Amino acid sequence: MFDSGFGGLTVLRELLRHLPGADFVYLDDTAHLPYGSKSQAAVTRFTAAATKLLVGRGADLVVVACNTASALALPLLQTEASVALMGVIQPGAEAAAAAVPPGSTVLVLATEATVASHAYARACAAHGLLAVEKACPLFVPLAEEGWTDSSITTQVADVYLREALATSPALPAAVVLGCTHYPLLRPLLQGTVQGLLGSVPIVDSAEATARRAAQLLPAATSAGQRGSVLSVLATDSPTKFQRLGARFLCRELPPVEHVQLEE
Amino acid sequence: MFDSGFGGLTVLRELLRHLPGADFVYLDDTAHLPYGSKSQAAVTRFTAAATKLLVGRGADLVVVACNTASALALPLLQTEASVALMGVIQPGAEAAAAAVPPGSTVLVLATEATVASHAYARACAAHGLLAVEKACPLFVPLAEEGWTDSSITTQVADVYLREALATSPALPAAVVLGCTHYPLLRPLLQGTVQGLLGSVPIVDSAEATARRAAQLLPAATSAGQRGSVLSVLATDSPTKFQRLGARFLCRELPPVEHVQLEE
Repeated sequence: MFDSGFGGLTVLRELLRHLPGADFVYLDDTAHLPYGSKSQAAVTRFTAAATKLLVGRGADLVVVACNTASALALPLLQTEASVALMGVIQPGAEAAAAAVPPGSTVLVLATEATVASHAYARACAAHGLLAVEKACPLFVPLAEEGWTDSSITTQVADVYLREALATSPALPAAVVLGCTHYPLLRPLLQGTVQGLLGSVPIVDSAEATARRAAQLLPAATSAGQRGSVLSVLATDSPTKFQRLGARFLCRELPPVEHVQLEE
Repeated sequence: MFDSGFGGLTVLRELLRHLPGADFVYLDDTAHLPYGSKSQAAVTRFTAAATKLLVGRGADLVVVACNTASALALPLLQTEASVALMGVIQPGAEAAAAAVPPGSTVLVLATEATVASHAYARACAAHGLLAVEKACPLFVPLAEEGWTDSSITTQVADVYLREALATSPALPAAVVLGCTHYPLLRPLLQGTVQGLLGSVPIVDSAEATARRAAQLLPAATSAGQRGSVLSVLATDSPTKFQRLGARFLCRELPPVEHVQLEE
């Protein structure tokens, strides 16, 4: 699996829970962080290089644990990959559909690039939902800065949500966290969403992604005797990963191996 | 010249004014934006590749219009470059020294990577100043988001400045904008600085950099008959550059040519 930062840890946590018999390689493409403000061509290049590296490490399944890469690069790469390749947007749309009545409007918060691709609008439409997509470019740097319970972040969330509601044709029945960093802001967003929309569910794709991965790798759903091995690779120095990763995953992290992508 | 975003335009504007007889190639390394949260190894790799590309385009002088690259990569690259290579930190420290009495304390606002390098502390010490360095990781995304007069940005500035003052041994006599993006926030910062420090000068390195470049290329300080040619290259789609660049430089921008760095 890979992401452009530690946001993908929200997905890794669920994968570890649902696939206790699998081994994991987590590739953190920190050299190109963030993906969310980059072009389709660039994100496709990074994603192709990351996939190649992970296949070279023996991956049977590559999980693109980044919404931007799932939106921009996955449709193209899935046609030419030599192993199973899955993203987080289809599972996210499925999780939203499971949480609200058919025909509902849902509010999708995501990066600029994901919103511009309208990947969520298409995935939600396939499940009978109308997605209102809102770009929230400051959420990733605020999460990376660790301001996850700052009143400043609350005000930023309020600005973004009010802007989104001003363009929404109906009151959203759920809020979808369309970026793997955003679950880090979830406790804070809960309050803002409650204040503006009342008690609507907040859904993210981490658990739905893990359930889908478990269908693809059924043999890995029961724990072996030795436990799963986790390797962590990074394209730049992963100080934040090491600081926050262990706390977040509630397990010891291995030393991070530095790698360079062949673009 | 190059930068990892449109921040370097603050330097380009002064270079165009001081070197009307020069032609310019501005390389925008948007594929790796932002540099400020990346490691020394990565920034050195990007800077070496950018320099090589610019020399290949016929540059007589390469201006590293990015404080992070100036701090992390310049000392190493200057020893092996085949053309003159200059950064923005030495000029910034000179501009600060010209603005305050000798022995003063100055507050340097910069990216995480620039602060961690202590390049400003060294450059300021060489001019008899004590630099208190403060990382402001949210300033670049706030400037890129265009929230240059938002009350949220004012609060972020207030948090950063108060944190910096809490660790400062003396009241700073000046504030140095140690990132080429920060001049875009200058009108807003003026108010916050005034409120906390009174009427102290705010200095940035753009003009001092242009004056130093003029010393290195004296023939270019008088305008030729044909005017200067500006070429713009980018490693990713430069939509923000095109939107904000023309307004900021008060001149028509050429079509942006897409290039890829050979890392």
